[in-house]
This record gives sequence, C-alpha cells and structure tokens, in this order.
Amino acid sequence: MTIALIAQEAGVSVPTVSKVINGRPEVAPETRRKVERLLLKHGYTRRTTLGDGPVGLIDLVFTELESPWAMELIRGAESATREVGAGIVISVMHTHAGPGRDWFDRVAARRTDGVIIVSSRLSASQYGHLNARSIPFVVVDPEGEPAPDVASVGATNWHGGLAATRHLLELGHRRIGMIGGPPDMLCSRARIDGYRAALETAGIPVDPALIHYGDFLVGSGHDRAHDLLSLPEPPTAIFAGSDLQAFGVFEAARQRGLRVPENLSVVGFDDIPLARSAWPPLTTVRQPLQEMAALAARMVLAMSRGEPLETRRVELATSLIVRDSTAAPRP
Amino acid sequence: MTIALIAQEAGVSVPTVSKVINGRPEVAPETRRKVERLLLKHGYTRRTTLGDGPVGLIDLVFTELESPWAMELIRGAESATREVGAGIVISVMHTHAGPGRDWFDRVAARRTDGVIIVSSRLSASQYGHLNARSIPFVVVDPEGEPAPDVASVGATNWHGGLAATRHLLELGHRRIGMIGGPPDMLCSRARIDGYRAALETAGIPVDPALIHYGDFLVGSGHDRAHDLLSLPEPPTAIFAGSDLQAFGVFEAARQRGLRVPENLSVVGFDDIPLARSAWPPLTTVRQPLQEMAALAARMVLAMSRGEPLETRRVELATSLIVRDSTAAPRP
Repeated sequence: MTIALIAQEAGVSVPTVSKVINGRPEVAPETRRKVERLLLKHGYTRRTTLGDGPVGLIDLVFTELESPWAMELIRGAESATREVGAGIVISVMHTHAGPGRDWFDRVAARRTDGVIIVSSRLSASQYGHLNARSIPFVVVDPEGEPAPDVASVGATNWHGGLAATRHLLELGHRRIGMIGGPPDMLCSRARIDGYRAALETAGIPVDPALIHYGDFLVGSGHDRAHDLLSLPEPPTAIFAGSDLQAFGVFEAARQRGLRVPENLSVVGFDDIPLARSAWPPLTTVRQPLQEMAALAARMVLAMSRGEPLETRRVELATSLIVRDSTAAPRP
Repeated sequence: MTIALIAQEAGVSVPTVSKVINGRPEVAPETRRKVERLLLKHGYTRRTTLGDGPVGLIDLVFTELESPWAMELIRGAESATREVGAGIVISVMHTHAGPGRDWFDRVAARRTDGVIIVSSRLSASQYGHLNARSIPFVVVDPEGEPAPDVASVGATNWHGGLAATRHLLELGHRRIGMIGGPPDMLCSRARIDGYRAALETAGIPVDPALIHYGDFLVGSGHDRAHDLLSLPEPPTAIFAGSDLQAFGVFEAARQRGLRVPENLSVVGFDDIPLARSAWPPLTTVRQPLQEMAALAARMVLAMSRGEPLETRRVELATSLIVRDSTAAPRP
C-alpha cells in the first residue's frame, strides 16, 4: 500500500497524507481522521526513515512514575542510549489507556528514533499509530499479552513466583499469603501462577482466601497484609508482588506487634536498591530492571537502523535473593 | 559580536562558524576548537532562535540517578512540560564535572528548548558553551554558588536545618549529631549552618566531633551514625542531611540494639515518598522537589520564548514534617 493509493482512496493529495503521517498540524481534523482510518485499515508502514539518519532520541513511556522501580528502568535505558550518544525522553501517561493521538502527533513532529513502552497494554489502533508513522517500538514488562509481531522484553515472572514460594516452603511454611499486583497485569498473574505451582507441586492445596490483589505500591501491601493477618487462620509468611508492597507488609506486621522474620516471613519482588537497606533486609526476587531497559533500548536502536532482531520476545531471568526477612515458622 | 566578525578573526567562513555553534560534525577538530575559543572569548550569544519555534524538548541533566529524590524532580519537570505539550530528555553525567563538549554538541545538534541542570557546578566554560549556543538554562539545587546572572531554583536549606535542630532542642536534646552531605555542596553547607545557628541561639556550643559528612546515600548515613554512636559521649539525636541517610541511621541504630525514637531520635531531609512508610515514619524536612523542578521547567520555557524572568534566583520554602522518629530523650 503506497501513500499515493491512500491519497486516492481518501480523495486528498499525496502531501496531505504525508502531513498526517508526520504529525504536522496543518490538516483539517476531519481529513486527518479519514486518512488515519485508511492508514490503519491498510496497515500502512513507512518503508524509509524520515530525514537524514538517527535523531539521537528514544522515547520511554510510563503509565506512572511512582516507584523506585521506574528509576531503575530509566537508569538502564539511559546507560544504553548514552553509549551511542543518544538521549532518553520521558513521558508519563497517568492512564492505563496508553498514549493518545496528541502524543503520537507530538512525537512524530519532533521525530524519535523509537519508543519503549513500559507496562502498558496498547490497543491495535495505538500500535497502528506507531506503525503508520514508522516508529519502532518495544514493550517492557507488557501488561497484557502483546501481539506476536510486537517486540517485548520481560522477566521470568512465573519462575520468580515459583522460587519465592519454594523458598518459603523449604523453610517449613505451609500457610503462605500472596499479595499480587492488579489481576489484569500479565506480570502479576505470572507471579501468582508461580506461587500456585510451587504449592501444588508440594501437595498443598491453594486456599483462595490467601490470595489478595493490590497495585504494587506500599499502601496496598499494608492494607492487604492486615486483611491476611486478620484471617481466622492467618498465614505465617507473605509473598508480596513488589518490594514496595513488602514494605507495606512490614508496616502492618509492626502495627500488630509481629516481628519479621520471627513471627512473619516476608518475600518481595523487584530488588529495588532500598530492599538491601530495609529492616530487616528484604528477601526478594530480583528482576534485572536495568538490564531489561538497556536491552529494550538496544532493540529499538537496532530497529531504527533497519537491522533485524534476533528474537522479538525476550524474558530475562529473575533470581531469588535471600536476606533476613525470611526464617522458619515458630513451632 | 557577530558571526561574521568571529569568522574573520578565525580565518574561516561564516557557515563554518555556524556549524560549530549548531554542533554539526563536519568541522575539523582544530578549527572547531579555534572557533569555540573565540566564541567564548567574545561571550558570543545567539540573538535569534534556531529554526521555526519551540522544539518541545527540555533537557534535564543529573550527576547521578541514584536516589528517589531524583525521581521527584523528574515527576515535577515532566508534569510542567506535559502541560505545554513538551517532553523531558534525561541525561546522567556520572561525574560532578558536569557535561562535556560532546554533550553540548549533541544537544545543539538535535536542538533543545532549554536545559535544567541538577546539583552541578558548571564551569565558566560550560556556561559559555550554553550561552554560545543560545540555550537557556536553569540550575536546580545548585552545588556551588552560581554566577549572579545564572537562573537557579533551590530550597530554603538553611531554614530547614534550623527548623530540624530547633525541633530536637525543644524535645530536650542537647547532644545532637549532624550528618551532612558532601562539604563542598552549597545545599549541604546551608543545612549544617542552620543546625549551628539553632544550637548557638539556644546557647549550646557546637561540638565539631558531632558533625560528620556523607554523600546523601544510605550507606554513608549508616557508617557516620556508627561513628557518632561510638563517641565517648554519643548523641541522643541525629539530624541527617537526607532521608536516605536517615534510613542508614535507622539501620545502624538497630544493629546497636537502639530503638528509634526511644533511644535515638532521627530527623531526615527531603521527604521522599518512602519517608512516610519507613518504620518508624520519619520526621523530616520537606523540600518541595516536584514544585522546584516544575518551576525550573516553566522558567526555561519562558526563557526559550524570549520572555523576561521576574527573578533569576528562587528559593522555595522547606517545612518540618513531624512524624514518629523523634521523641524526648530518656532521662
């Protein structure tokens, strides 16, 4: 599908289609919508790069910037782009719906070498916006199941959930609470499924009352831990889906006069820098966040140079880091 | 001083001088250096903006990206630029020497509407690079004393140090340890001077053995707290120059079997989001970090539009947030 054919079908000139693709403002809204519909319908993709070579900018798009977790991704992406003299542009969407039309237009207008999208679930039309503008993109830690042709970098979340839960089982825990992230986030589901798999492999039935959902932030760890510890038969250990949630569990335990790990074992997920200096130092599942973002940046840069990717979907290994927040349950 | 006169003095063409100013690569290194020396010598400043209007990009330059403190600045700058449809480009220098020539060239080549420099002490030649390229810039939390014509945004660090120390004095503490940041950082000196002023106003002599210096990170808070608590007459309270250092003090106290605040009161500085969920919740001096970065972004955007600034040096107020890490000393 060429621009000329799209212009013909839309009944506009070739330069007008070009302007829409490049996000330039001087097109009537109705015309723009009509051209965009046709670009999406025909799955139009630019074959050539805009202008003269790389711009030296990669866009890094977050839903929120609330957790030290995001900082680790920024650091990783920054170090990979700095190696090649490029810069990182940060955008925060403040909505799980992903970027809107304005954002795509702005990015196309100022040009970008590529986009790294963190934890967002883009719609087909959003992917279409990027493809129509020939903007390479990689999804880091995808929230939903990305389409097969979408490049993505994640971590082995299921294995992490399995390793965390096995560690608690090996210590002798039998009632293990789980505080996941939002139930519709793929990475969160995978961690919970790893938890289930470890229990089932050990012959311990999964008790749905022990599985709660949060939002990966401190407050939800605190609230859900109180829920779990108020059960008639409370857990002796809690596996939290993020380090921040684990810090919230610490807080709830102290409020109830429980000591960690003597009265309650706690495992986190992420290994943010503060996990090491928490009290007690937090046993957690390390996600190689900096490496994940650096790899995504290198993939996007390769795509912007027109190089083929060896593989479009990569999961980097998680690893259990045992510190002092876990111990055998008291008899 | 015009480009033509500089070209004449350098014995090169006007387009060559233009290329140097715009950071384009196709100039011989020797010629580039000669032209740059002349641009700096004559304090050349571009009068007109490059190209056609704002680019929609502000550069935010950090020395390091290690603390949640930096995240708050990113969030503030991002929200202010998003309002006007611009983006934030993050650079990390990994050296206190500030950006090198490569960086200035790269930024000039891809164009920027302006630069926000965090906690760096730029040399006259670095300021010259920015001025020669007509790039507006604002320094946030300046490390040294910026030149009078440099726009800067800081916080009332001296008042913060005074308020923190007064709070401890009012609780009845008389031996108060101080863990500052690097001694050559202006913001750190101001906090220590506020501490001194509070002690002297209360008629308590300043004991130099109680003043230690760190790097604002957890580890130095931990190490310096052990030094202070090993003194023959240890302090009953410690004022840390950052929240991360205060977390390090918590850790050292626990290692020595001291409870906070029963055996040791601790005050931090910054009020990063985790201060609230620390255990115990941390009494700290709040810096309005998001507001500081947002103001710096608005100042840079105004400068890029050629608007005059109402004032070139702004300090936003700090405020004491009393939580649970401070109490009266045990008799």
